Amino acid sequence: MEIKVLKNVLDRNNDQAEKNKALLRKHDLVMLNMISSPGAGKTTILEKTIPELLKTKNVGVIEGDAYTSKDAERLQKFDIPIVQINTEGTCHLDSSSVRSAFEQLDLAQLDVIFVENVGNLICPTGFDLGENIRIAVLSTTEGDDKPAKYPMLFRQAKAVVLNKVDLIPYIHFDKDGFFSDLHLLNPSVNTFEMSAFKETGVDEWINWLKAHIT
Amino acid sequence: MEIKVLKNVLDRNNDQAEKNKALLRKHDLVMLNMISSPGAGKTTILEKTIPELLKTKNVGVIEGDAYTSKDAERLQKFDIPIVQINTEGTCHLDSSSVRSAFEQLDLAQLDVIFVENVGNLICPTGFDLGENIRIAVLSTTEGDDKPAKYPMLFRQAKAVVLNKVDLIPYIHFDKDGFFSDLHLLNPSVNTFEMSAFKETGVDEWINWLKAHIT
Repeated sequence: MEIKVLKNVLDRNNDQAEKNKALLRKHDLVMLNMISSPGAGKTTILEKTIPELLKTKNVGVIEGDAYTSKDAERLQKFDIPIVQINTEGTCHLDSSSVRSAFEQLDLAQLDVIFVENVGNLICPTGFDLGENIRIAVLSTTEGDDKPAKYPMLFRQAKAVVLNKVDLIPYIHFDKDGFFSDLHLLNPSVNTFEMSAFKETGVDEWINWLKAHIT
Repeated sequence: MEIKVLKNVLDRNNDQAEKNKALLRKHDLVMLNMISSPGAGKTTILEKTIPELLKTKNVGVIEGDAYTSKDAERLQKFDIPIVQINTEGTCHLDSSSVRSAFEQLDLAQLDVIFVENVGNLICPTGFDLGENIRIAVLSTTEGDDKPAKYPMLFRQAKAVVLNKVDLIPYIHFDKDGFFSDLHLLNPSVNTFEMSAFKETGVDEWINWLKAHIT
C-alpha cells in the first residue's frame, strides 16, 4: 500500500487553526481549549462556570469525545448551543473538526466558546485548534508528579485548574511540590485551586474568565 | 513532502507482537500490559503486587512514559530488572519498543513481566505488545461513565482493577452502574475492587495473578 502525504498533518492542522483564529477575531469571540485526563472534571467545571457566565455572556460549547455524547447531554440543561464531535477513537480534536463545528454555531451571536477536548494529556497538545486560551485541568487524585511527566501541556497552558482539592486530605498530594514543578515549567501560568463538585474556588476562576472575554 | 508508507503501522506492530509472543512462549513467561489514565494508580498497584509475587516468582518491569523515569524510580527499591521506555511524547508503547526492552532483560530468568503502558485510555488499545494479559485500571475518581466512553479498552481487558475505592464516600460514583456498563461490554471480564494506597482488595488480585503465572 502506498500513501502520498502531500503535506504534513501538523502543518495542515496549523493552517486551518490560523483560519479558525481569523474567524474568532472577526466575531470578537474568545475560544478556550480545555485539556485534561479522562475524569479530571472538565464537564463539572463547565457545569459550574456556564450559568455564571450566562448572566452577561453568550456561551457555546464544542464537546470532543472518542465516542458517546454523555458530556454534551450533561450540559443540555443550559439551553445553549452545543456541538458534539465524536473522534471515533482518535485521541484529540483537530482544527478541521472545530471548523466543522463552527458551521453548526451562530458565531456572530456568541461571546465565548468552550472546547472540551478528548480526555488525554498527550495527543491534544500537538493540535492547535485556533483557540485564544489553552487551559489544563488536573485533578489532585492524578498525583502531584504530572507536570514533570506531561511537560508539553503544562508548558503551553495559560491557566491550570487544580481540581478536586477537597480530596487532598484523603490522598498523597504535595501541593507545594506540584506548584513548584509547574512554575518551573511555566513561570507565568495562572493557577486556580478548585473543587467544582463542592463548588469551592469557582469564583476566582469565573472572574479571571470574565476578564478575558470581551 | 512525499512519504511512502510501505506497510501499515498497525500491521507492522502486529507482526512484531507475534514475534514477542513467540519469545514469551519460548521462555514460559507471562507478560501483562497495564493500561489506564494518568494517575489511576498503576505504579502503586505494582508497588503492592511485586513484593508478594517475589516470594515465589521472578518479576521484571517495562515502564512506558512519555518522559521521565519517575515510575521506574519508585520500583527500584525491589531490586528487580526494570527497563524504562521513554516514548518522547508518543501516547502509547508499541511492540518494537517492547522488543528492545526484552534485549535488556534476561528472559530465561523471569516468570512474569509487567508492562506499565503510557497513561492513556485510547492510544495503547490499538497496539498489541504481544502480552498474554491486558489489564485495565480505572480509579473511581475518574467517574463511573468511563466504560461507555472508552469501550475499546474495557472490551479488550481480561481484568479490570477498580482502584481508589476508598474515595467513593467522598465522590459521586455509581458502582452498580459502572459494573453493569462494564459487563455489558465485556461479560467475561474479571474485576477487582482495590485501594492500592490503603492496601485493601490486593490479596484477591494477587491470587488471580498467581493462578495465571506458570
